[in-house]
Amino acid sequence: MEQRVSLVTLGVADLVRARAFYEALGWHTDSDPAQGVVFFQAGGMIVGLWDRGELAKDSAAEDAGGWGGITLAHNLRSPGEVDAVLAEAEGAGAEIRRPGAPTFWGGYSGLFADLDGHAWEVAHNPGWQLADDGSISLA
Amino acid sequence: MEQRVSLVTLGVADLVRARAFYEALGWHTDSDPAQGVVFFQAGGMIVGLWDRGELAKDSAAEDAGGWGGITLAHNLRSPGEVDAVLAEAEGAGAEIRRPGAPTFWGGYSGLFADLDGHAWEVAHNPGWQLADDGSISLA
Repeated sequence: MEQRVSLVTLGVADLVRARAFYEALGWHTDSDPAQGVVFFQAGGMIVGLWDRGELAKDSAAEDAGGWGGITLAHNLRSPGEVDAVLAEAEGAGAEIRRPGAPTFWGGYSGLFADLDGHAWEVAHNPGWQLADDGSISLA
Repeated sequence: MEQRVSLVTLGVADLVRARAFYEALGWHTDSDPAQGVVFFQAGGMIVGLWDRGELAKDSAAEDAGGWGGITLAHNLRSPGEVDAVLAEAEGAGAEIRRPGAPTFWGGYSGLFADLDGHAWEVAHNPGWQLADDGSISLA
């Protein structure tokens, strides 16, 4: 198994609303709303949005509801950029669960939950390399 | 907010065991076992393993246990490759929740749960472009 992820699918309650949230953050998709699934090209991988019940069934998973042990992160080049993205997310309707602040690991981060409760840490990690194309590398 | 994901962190019960599972799949990390967190370079992003309780706390999330509405996928170039990776995962101790089979969307996929129950779909989608470096693009 190659060391990579192709797709992260987020289960959502309302596909139109969830799509609009990510579009409000500046994301773009050509997915046809009638198709019942939304795909965003996200660097060398894809982020999908799909009905949570359908995703649970397709994943042969019992859905306990709420958070399930996976948190996403979006890294940026400075603490100021972190605060700006957190403000942008809040403006789009996200819940700020942790405001931007210095972290125990020597960086700076905050965390928002999207409209379906999916956790996104927004972070600046001075030990990682963030390329112009948005790809990130361990030091 | 740029259209990308920097890091996917999987909450795990036993970091040594979880790391060994991904290493058994052929993944490599230089993370120091004493650091309490494991990072795998995964194309232009990073996959992390961290104690699930710590991750829940850091994510300001209530942990309902089990699956929480996020499924990962690893795409491959043929149905045969899908079956091979599913067999490899099973050999490493994963639970096969859905064996490889043709899908309603015109591809071929199966699904395994890692040792902590995180769902990985293993898929061939003939409509997406998988580059030599493992990056994937919507058609």
